[in-house]
Amino acid sequence: MTADPVLDALRFDAHGLMPAVAQDAATGRVLMLAWVNREAVEATLRSGFAHYWSRSRGALWKKGETSGHLQRIVDIRLDCDGDALLYRVEQTGPACHTNRPSCFYRQLRDGAWVEVEAPVA
Amino acid sequence: MTADPVLDALRFDAHGLMPAVAQDAATGRVLMLAWVNREAVEATLRSGFAHYWSRSRGALWKKGETSGHLQRIVDIRLDCDGDALLYRVEQTGPACHTNRPSCFYRQLRDGAWVEVEAPVA
Repeated sequence: MTADPVLDALRFDAHGLMPAVAQDAATGRVLMLAWVNREAVEATLRSGFAHYWSRSRGALWKKGETSGHLQRIVDIRLDCDGDALLYRVEQTGPACHTNRPSCFYRQLRDGAWVEVEAPVA
Repeated sequence: MTADPVLDALRFDAHGLMPAVAQDAATGRVLMLAWVNREAVEATLRSGFAHYWSRSRGALWKKGETSGHLQRIVDIRLDCDGDALLYRVEQTGPACHTNRPSCFYRQLRDGAWVEVEAPVA
């Protein structure tokens, strides 16, 4: 692991992870929240496409690799504490694995979570 | 702890926490990412203002309680896995403790993190 001013600024947690929020750069819509480790950020920077770390599979994950629903990086932001990333992306297809445009498709209404967006046909 | 369909849908991690993203409901700007536990979400729902759990202080934290930079809840979204929240808010003053409008004020440019936003005077 070589010194790298961009990667070394990132404050990963005890598991080597930090949250990354993906936002549609054109619409401002928040698409998803996933996790990255150093390897995922390196792969994102190298490829220009969002990569994450799958905690369930314990594996590097290129978003859209199987679905084709890629996220091209437009812009990357880091927060004040260095422990959260914002990927501003150009999203191909729906961002959510449920085939909805955003993972945040449940809205709190009158004391219940209501699905406010249907899967894309 | 009583049964509550809204709170019981939330999948907190092993530490009882989950990330919450605050977004300006008017502009779509991503303001910050912080952490919530069940108590923080309850306080948010009860008060209509964003509450978080401070991991460093180990305490419930009403955003803006000392600074006045409150976040009035406009809308709350939950993601597909139930393990991330999106608070869409009306932000009073700057969201960041550095006095910048957003915590995500560092942008990756030509291999370096560059501050692209100054503190509000």
